[in-house]
Amino acid sequence: MLGGGEGAFIGAVHRIAARLDDCYELVAAALSSDPARAASSAAAIHLPPERSYADWRELVRAEAARPDGAEVVAIVTPNHLHAPMATAALQAGLHVICDKPLAVSLAEGEELARLARQHDRVFVLTHPYAAYPMVRHARHLVASGALGHIRLVQAEYQQDWLSRPLEQEGNKQAAWRADPAQAGPAGCLGDIGTHAYQLACFVTGMVPSQLAAELTSFVPGRVLDDHVQMMLRYANGARGLLWASQVAAGCENALRLRVFGTEGSLAFDQEQPNELWFTPLGGAAQRLTRGRVDSAAAQQATRVPAGHPEGYLEAFAQVYRDAATLILARNACRPADAQALQVTTVEDGIAGHRFIDAVLASHAGDGAWVALAPHP
Amino acid sequence: MLGGGEGAFIGAVHRIAARLDDCYELVAAALSSDPARAASSAAAIHLPPERSYADWRELVRAEAARPDGAEVVAIVTPNHLHAPMATAALQAGLHVICDKPLAVSLAEGEELARLARQHDRVFVLTHPYAAYPMVRHARHLVASGALGHIRLVQAEYQQDWLSRPLEQEGNKQAAWRADPAQAGPAGCLGDIGTHAYQLACFVTGMVPSQLAAELTSFVPGRVLDDHVQMMLRYANGARGLLWASQVAAGCENALRLRVFGTEGSLAFDQEQPNELWFTPLGGAAQRLTRGRVDSAAAQQATRVPAGHPEGYLEAFAQVYRDAATLILARNACRPADAQALQVTTVEDGIAGHRFIDAVLASHAGDGAWVALAPHP
Amino acid sequence: MLGGGEGAFIGAVHRIAARLDDCYELVAAALSSDPARAASSAAAIHLPPERSYADWRELVRAEAARPDGAEVVAIVTPNHLHAPMATAALQAGLHVICDKPLAVSLAEGEELARLARQHDRVFVLTHPYAAYPMVRHARHLVASGALGHIRLVQAEYQQDWLSRPLEQEGNKQAAWRADPAQAGPAGCLGDIGTHAYQLACFVTGMVPSQLAAELTSFVPGRVLDDHVQMMLRYANGARGLLWASQVAAGCENALRLRVFGTEGSLAFDQEQPNELWFTPLGGAAQRLTRGRVDSAAAQQATRVPAGHPEGYLEAFAQVYRDAATLILARNACRPADAQALQVTTVEDGIAGHRFIDAVLASHAGDGAWVALAPHP
Amino acid sequence: MLGGGEGAFIGAVHRIAARLDDCYELVAAALSSDPARAASSAAAIHLPPERSYADWRELVRAEAARPDGAEVVAIVTPNHLHAPMATAALQAGLHVICDKPLAVSLAEGEELARLARQHDRVFVLTHPYAAYPMVRHARHLVASGALGHIRLVQAEYQQDWLSRPLEQEGNKQAAWRADPAQAGPAGCLGDIGTHAYQLACFVTGMVPSQLAAELTSFVPGRVLDDHVQMMLRYANGARGLLWASQVAAGCENALRLRVFGTEGSLAFDQEQPNELWFTPLGGAAQRLTRGRVDSAAAQQATRVPAGHPEGYLEAFAQVYRDAATLILARNACRPADAQALQVTTVEDGIAGHRFIDAVLASHAGDGAWVALAPHP
Repeated sequence: MLGGGEGAFIGAVHRIAARLDDCYELVAAALSSDPARAASSAAAIHLPPERSYADWRELVRAEAARPDGAEVVAIVTPNHLHAPMATAALQAGLHVICDKPLAVSLAEGEELARLARQHDRVFVLTHPYAAYPMVRHARHLVASGALGHIRLVQAEYQQDWLSRPLEQEGNKQAAWRADPAQAGPAGCLGDIGTHAYQLACFVTGMVPSQLAAELTSFVPGRVLDDHVQMMLRYANGARGLLWASQVAAGCENALRLRVFGTEGSLAFDQEQPNELWFTPLGGAAQRLTRGRVDSAAAQQATRVPAGHPEGYLEAFAQVYRDAATLILARNACRPADAQALQVTTVEDGIAGHRFIDAVLASHAGDGAWVALAPHP
Repeated sequence: MLGGGEGAFIGAVHRIAARLDDCYELVAAALSSDPARAASSAAAIHLPPERSYADWRELVRAEAARPDGAEVVAIVTPNHLHAPMATAALQAGLHVICDKPLAVSLAEGEELARLARQHDRVFVLTHPYAAYPMVRHARHLVASGALGHIRLVQAEYQQDWLSRPLEQEGNKQAAWRADPAQAGPAGCLGDIGTHAYQLACFVTGMVPSQLAAELTSFVPGRVLDDHVQMMLRYANGARGLLWASQVAAGCENALRLRVFGTEGSLAFDQEQPNELWFTPLGGAAQRLTRGRVDSAAAQQATRVPAGHPEGYLEAFAQVYRDAATLILARNACRPADAQALQVTTVEDGIAGHRFIDAVLASHAGDGAWVALAPHP
Repeated sequence: MLGGGEGAFIGAVHRIAARLDDCYELVAAALSSDPARAASSAAAIHLPPERSYADWRELVRAEAARPDGAEVVAIVTPNHLHAPMATAALQAGLHVICDKPLAVSLAEGEELARLARQHDRVFVLTHPYAAYPMVRHARHLVASGALGHIRLVQAEYQQDWLSRPLEQEGNKQAAWRADPAQAGPAGCLGDIGTHAYQLACFVTGMVPSQLAAELTSFVPGRVLDDHVQMMLRYANGARGLLWASQVAAGCENALRLRVFGTEGSLAFDQEQPNELWFTPLGGAAQRLTRGRVDSAAAQQATRVPAGHPEGYLEAFAQVYRDAATLILARNACRPADAQALQVTTVEDGIAGHRFIDAVLASHAGDGAWVALAPHP
Repeated sequence: MLGGGEGAFIGAVHRIAARLDDCYELVAAALSSDPARAASSAAAIHLPPERSYADWRELVRAEAARPDGAEVVAIVTPNHLHAPMATAALQAGLHVICDKPLAVSLAEGEELARLARQHDRVFVLTHPYAAYPMVRHARHLVASGALGHIRLVQAEYQQDWLSRPLEQEGNKQAAWRADPAQAGPAGCLGDIGTHAYQLACFVTGMVPSQLAAELTSFVPGRVLDDHVQMMLRYANGARGLLWASQVAAGCENALRLRVFGTEGSLAFDQEQPNELWFTPLGGAAQRLTRGRVDSAAAQQATRVPAGHPEGYLEAFAQVYRDAATLILARNACRPADAQALQVTTVEDGIAGHRFIDAVLASHAGDGAWVALAPHP
């Protein structure tokens, strides 16, 4: 594990996720670039001192050289370190599980994809919201034609934790997100807007052909955006809206998607992940539940029966489990199909960067329509 | 009553609304331009034959001449008749209660406003959704500062009843709405988009300064739009989205408004009108209910205690009750303040036409930002 | 109208309900036994002074004697006056619409039923919650076998407005309800428990064969019960629970019914009356909505389309409309079938008194099982 | 681990729960009494063959003898094996984590409590629903007086999976639950009724003083109850109802608790475990969320921020984490306070057996009131 020392929320999440389905063992980590913090963080999670590294380059080097070295690295740092770390890991022959966004630019991201192909390594990007069973069932419903032709896509993601200038008050999580040097050129857009975009693409199987967007920084002194809103056009004539905000007072982690087709609609709310609403045209809304739907995609992402709620950690664990399936298949020389497995990879990261770049371009053009290339 | 013969949904709604609070008596009507239908419709509602008219111009003339003639006309026809009918009524000294939209163009609407002022008549436009007690309480909350400074406005209105080309299948309600000669240049935009816009303006007390919009006609053969989406900018820096669709499969009459400020947010759903959600920044969502909130604005629009649901007809009746209050005040030579009363008037209709025109202009400019004048 | 003077909540409700569907005209009233209050109340609703009575016996006498006299009386007083008023009205040849409970004892109620039969008059009891379209649809679903054989019935009704001793603090509504001389021997049981019971019987079409109950008075100094709970047994083996409380903190008017059968279940919540939940065994919950269900029973109780909420006043108006249908049919010498019409009559009142008596008997026996006779 | 071989739902749940917070390592197991199944189950979870036992008595003997032997056993078998297994483990000096119900009789349960005290071992009973953060916060709210004096307790638990005679169709989970020899004398009562009871006691801190109950077996051929309903009395005058059913069509795992006091009420639904509703008397309902409430009890049971849902596995893991805390404290010779920790122990199991016995006695007496002893 690279990053994820004491106080880092996402590091602990990754460790639980890796452990939950018993597919991984944490054997080594560079939890912090500060040697003392790296050591104390490692001790806190019972990691042997000899496999705790303060220098992540040293970890990659040393582990790649050990016969019992790590096979896969999890990258859980601020955004600007994703590319250099992943590059080193891939070059050393390690598989990569990386937090999103993939990098701080499309060019960086494309180079990572190239490296992953060159070294034939698995590169999984953690989009846990796409790993909820009911999201996978939503994708199944759209693909199966249950909604008819898609007409409308409505994606939104609201949080309120950045409503005040936390980055100016010593909050570490806020600080790096608000700093272009660490976060890249996109704030809320890169942090959560990309989740909403990825979810919309994942469920509909469609990529917008054009978008018209604008970014806003509401909090005085904030350099990067804390709100983004846009209109979407799709090649098949569908239309949509997407907005994400980290200053939406009263919202915790409200990622929602609604898709409307000629024959029906669906709605998903990340804060109620055990259910998916499907409404046929003119009919009664149906509350579909995890554990009582019959798609293989949903079932393979489910651990406990209907009525026993699963949550964010289980979805995150699913990403890890899917990554393990990919790696084991690769090891067995029968590469699995990431798309069939519905796991998000470096390609989703590239799609995210294209989205970010298009939004930045549209914003620079005062909301002019900007084209988006189809996904690879 | 002008219009509202047999088979016309909204005519019956107006009659119940007028009756509910016992402020009106229906004394005369031109329910249809077809004499036979006018007569049978009048008989069905026990109107004396001598005060049933087939020609609405004749009604205005005759009633204005009677000592016991009608004091106010309710106009419940397709859009293109609103202006000529209201013009005649105002010129004859009658007060007017008119369905929205006010007219088929801003010029027509402005002329009506001028006439109403000239003849000193009450001119109420029926925006019933703004008459729900919890909507009035929402406006009170914003005005009282409970949300702090407004940052985000999210308005949406979905129906699915025009998902198929009903206007080509003999549906009368669909037919006139889909015909530019009767409906004017805006379809879904004028029919329901204006409700969403009015609700957003009513609750926030703010008018957008700019919008970037596009219209879509999804159903083959449909001339007018059945979907509209747009981004909004406000003079104070607030941002927002508004969309309305009559092809949103699975939706009945889903008019929703969310407003986010620096200190809290609120959410209203027209299909659950007895409640309003208020969430302070970082706190617990609160379900405020009709009958248990203490604003005068909400209380005066409420008839029964908390837990005894009110609905659409009560809201519509409130518009009629408020109009009666205005008329009685005028009769008593102490004009009431329509704004204090929160009743929607010809001025709201003009605001609606400015909105429609701005959307049409932005759409014509491929979604370019178009300025909106402040409300009068 | 007998009772319903200024300050009486339910009098205004009856008047709106009578007016809403334009089937009734209020021609005379004895709004209060206090002459001054009767007169001022009459003036406030524009009733001609000569048809405002301070003595309700005088009203019955005078109106029955007029050629244009009232045809039906609405009784909206405290419980102890129901029987004497209804008796006089029936004997004078008037139809009766009476608030529930029917009387203060079963014997009184049975005598009223006998009189109604003897004089061949319509006697409608106002159970508005059974007049919601979705409740009627619920009854249709059960009758049509959609739930299979009924196994479980769960009825509950919570309010919190009597959580404190309002009857000792000058609240008139609370005072008569807490006084056995005016309310009869049952407090919460008679006031709202009977609604829950009636709703359960109405929807399931089944009457419990036995019950085991206990009453509680939580508020110090209160003589009558403010809480009742019981277990139910049905002849077909079904089981159930029923509870009602007027000290359930946080509840407004929470009347809820759930029915479970071998093939599915349904749930209704009076505070959300525009929807009914149906869930097939092992399947997805479905939100059925007023206006989109196809039973005749629901449709005839509906005024506005799906998505335009109706509420308590519309349900109350439905009782009045149904009563008018019965009266008009009687006048036309083709008596309508009250049961097909689903309107609640004097027989429902008798069922309510049998229920009250059984609960009182069980409570007196420390919760022993007490048999309930089948409904007439 | 004793029990939990392939196909056993709860075995996998225990293993994930033990692993999630990294407090346990699974070192040995007797997953099945069938040697072949024990071996294949062990292999499937990567357990070394030498620590996979077919005979659980052998496991206890061998592991207790090893210097690196297991410290704690998890008992996840059908009910009748709980007592013999726990007895052997305690006598061998092992701590015990045991599925509920504790045993098949009160006497067995009391003997286990005696043994746990005698051998000074930790004995945790897995009531995961009491380990949800919002349940712990509910207990905190009651204890802090936020509800005032408790008046009403409403507990219910519905499932539908036994609506049909699965036990006669080869379903193993159903088969042992329906067999008195394996399940004990209580069916639905012991399986899920005890959860509802425990939850009610846990949150309110009160034990009913009396209950009047009846059991029902709806499914033909079923010996044990599949439905139980009862009335409750508390020493402080509070009243309540409790019901549990495994034939409630349309229900998945609907465990719900409502508590009403003089000052407010709360409601919890296990299927939405990330929220708790609190409503002050006469006020607005508040949706309290995991991660945004400030009680230490809730915070120590929370892993991820508000808006990132947690579920059943996290609650189960909390039981394991709390057990680990108890064991580590015991090892460090500073015994922790189980009650402060809010972990459920052998004492909760005894309370459950007292409850079961009282219900069986009341049922045998046709619903007579039966006294319940206060908890130890």
